[in-house]
Amino acid sequence: MNVLIVYAHPEPRSLNGSLKSFICDHLNSLGHHVMVSDLYAMRWKASLDQNDFPHLRADERFDPSSASQYAFLNDSQPADIKSEQDKLHQADLVIWQFPMWWFSMPAIMKGWFERVYAYGLGYGVGEHNQQHWGDRYGEGSFAGKRAMIVTTMGGWESHYSERGINGALSDLLFPIEHGMLFYAGFSVLPAVAFYRVGRFDAAQFEHCCQLLTERLNHIEQIEPIDFRQQNGGDYVLPALTLHPRLSAAEKGLKIHRKG
Amino acid sequence: MNVLIVYAHPEPRSLNGSLKSFICDHLNSLGHHVMVSDLYAMRWKASLDQNDFPHLRADERFDPSSASQYAFLNDSQPADIKSEQDKLHQADLVIWQFPMWWFSMPAIMKGWFERVYAYGLGYGVGEHNQQHWGDRYGEGSFAGKRAMIVTTMGGWESHYSERGINGALSDLLFPIEHGMLFYAGFSVLPAVAFYRVGRFDAAQFEHCCQLLTERLNHIEQIEPIDFRQQNGGDYVLPALTLHPRLSAAEKGLKIHRKG
Repeated sequence: MNVLIVYAHPEPRSLNGSLKSFICDHLNSLGHHVMVSDLYAMRWKASLDQNDFPHLRADERFDPSSASQYAFLNDSQPADIKSEQDKLHQADLVIWQFPMWWFSMPAIMKGWFERVYAYGLGYGVGEHNQQHWGDRYGEGSFAGKRAMIVTTMGGWESHYSERGINGALSDLLFPIEHGMLFYAGFSVLPAVAFYRVGRFDAAQFEHCCQLLTERLNHIEQIEPIDFRQQNGGDYVLPALTLHPRLSAAEKGLKIHRKG
Repeated sequence: MNVLIVYAHPEPRSLNGSLKSFICDHLNSLGHHVMVSDLYAMRWKASLDQNDFPHLRADERFDPSSASQYAFLNDSQPADIKSEQDKLHQADLVIWQFPMWWFSMPAIMKGWFERVYAYGLGYGVGEHNQQHWGDRYGEGSFAGKRAMIVTTMGGWESHYSERGINGALSDLLFPIEHGMLFYAGFSVLPAVAFYRVGRFDAAQFEHCCQLLTERLNHIEQIEPIDFRQQNGGDYVLPALTLHPRLSAAEKGLKIHRKG
């Protein structure tokens, strides 16, 4: 299998750096082919701006979506963006690994999505009308590929539980797992999360590696999160609200899973 | 009142640019003092990295939290970070204005939080033990100040409703409004959101300005979102789970509001 790891931590000697190395080594030992996008090491340009679109005239009004659509269609994208898109096309599985900073991914990785997910690739895919709102949420460019988040947190697992003060981890990750990954067609495997990582010792690191080993050994069999497809009848178009017969008594973001 | 607007859009002639100008002008006309951090115009450095911490030795292992703590305590932070912190201290109200990109703020603004919210200012504030988990979630450096998000979306309002496919807007904003703003002590006013902004005409822009006028005219009277304080008895420490007597039958992120 071809695996792409998109990784964001500024310090190679961090826990995240060690976990990334472990994941690479273990996937290699299983016979997979591993590509790594180490965003800090690559000095990845984080901000989407006019400089990403050399076709724009100096005084032209910049609309990010239409500029992205033009550049993607006319093959005028910058080399760093094209290279990441190529890796995505080659990958069967993509792992995004990052420390949770302010309950989301680091800015450098957010900017990876903004720049790499071009109009026509990450969004703006498929017929778009009031009966079919584009190929998204379960359909799209990356249908057939698997995706997984690996993340670390300083807080305790209970702080991220269903009644934990930070919000349930699955709800915090919803904008990413549902809004970025499932949106573009990926089958999203449950995230691997490590808690209380501020004072990690060798035994705890060993335990993380065991968990990752188990996950990676069975990565092709793990069931994806059962998010509901947009175009399969579960949502009423064009309002795109969940059909009244589904999860009628439930509340919260979990209504978007088949459960 | 002193108002800080933290604003992220790369094109001054965009809808967001026009709305930002309107907000500034209207606040000025009401006699408020307005500061603007126009992150794209400032070429704001989006990625938190070693370069933010000149005190680090070349070969020193970089731990973002402890480096941030040292720099904040020893007044060795870069000028761009200090300047934003000064504005925060002066502000009575802070407005974060941005287009929703991938169900969150643009990377450049995420990096504003990562860099400006230093350890000792945005987090790591107050006594931290198993009976009092720091001054956060309703307490903290910015207690007494108001905060508000103004955001624009291409999608329809129904797509962001309680049963909308994108997830309810309040749930998508939870990591920001609860995890970044309320966390650091701000009283968070309900967000102002504009939908279907892809094809805006003059009448629609006028309508936005009317909504903003109403909001800004009463900005000092608007009731903040009723998020639950961490240290007021609603959460069981140190697990930091919501007390069993509260919202016992409810699900989802709304349990963290008094409702």
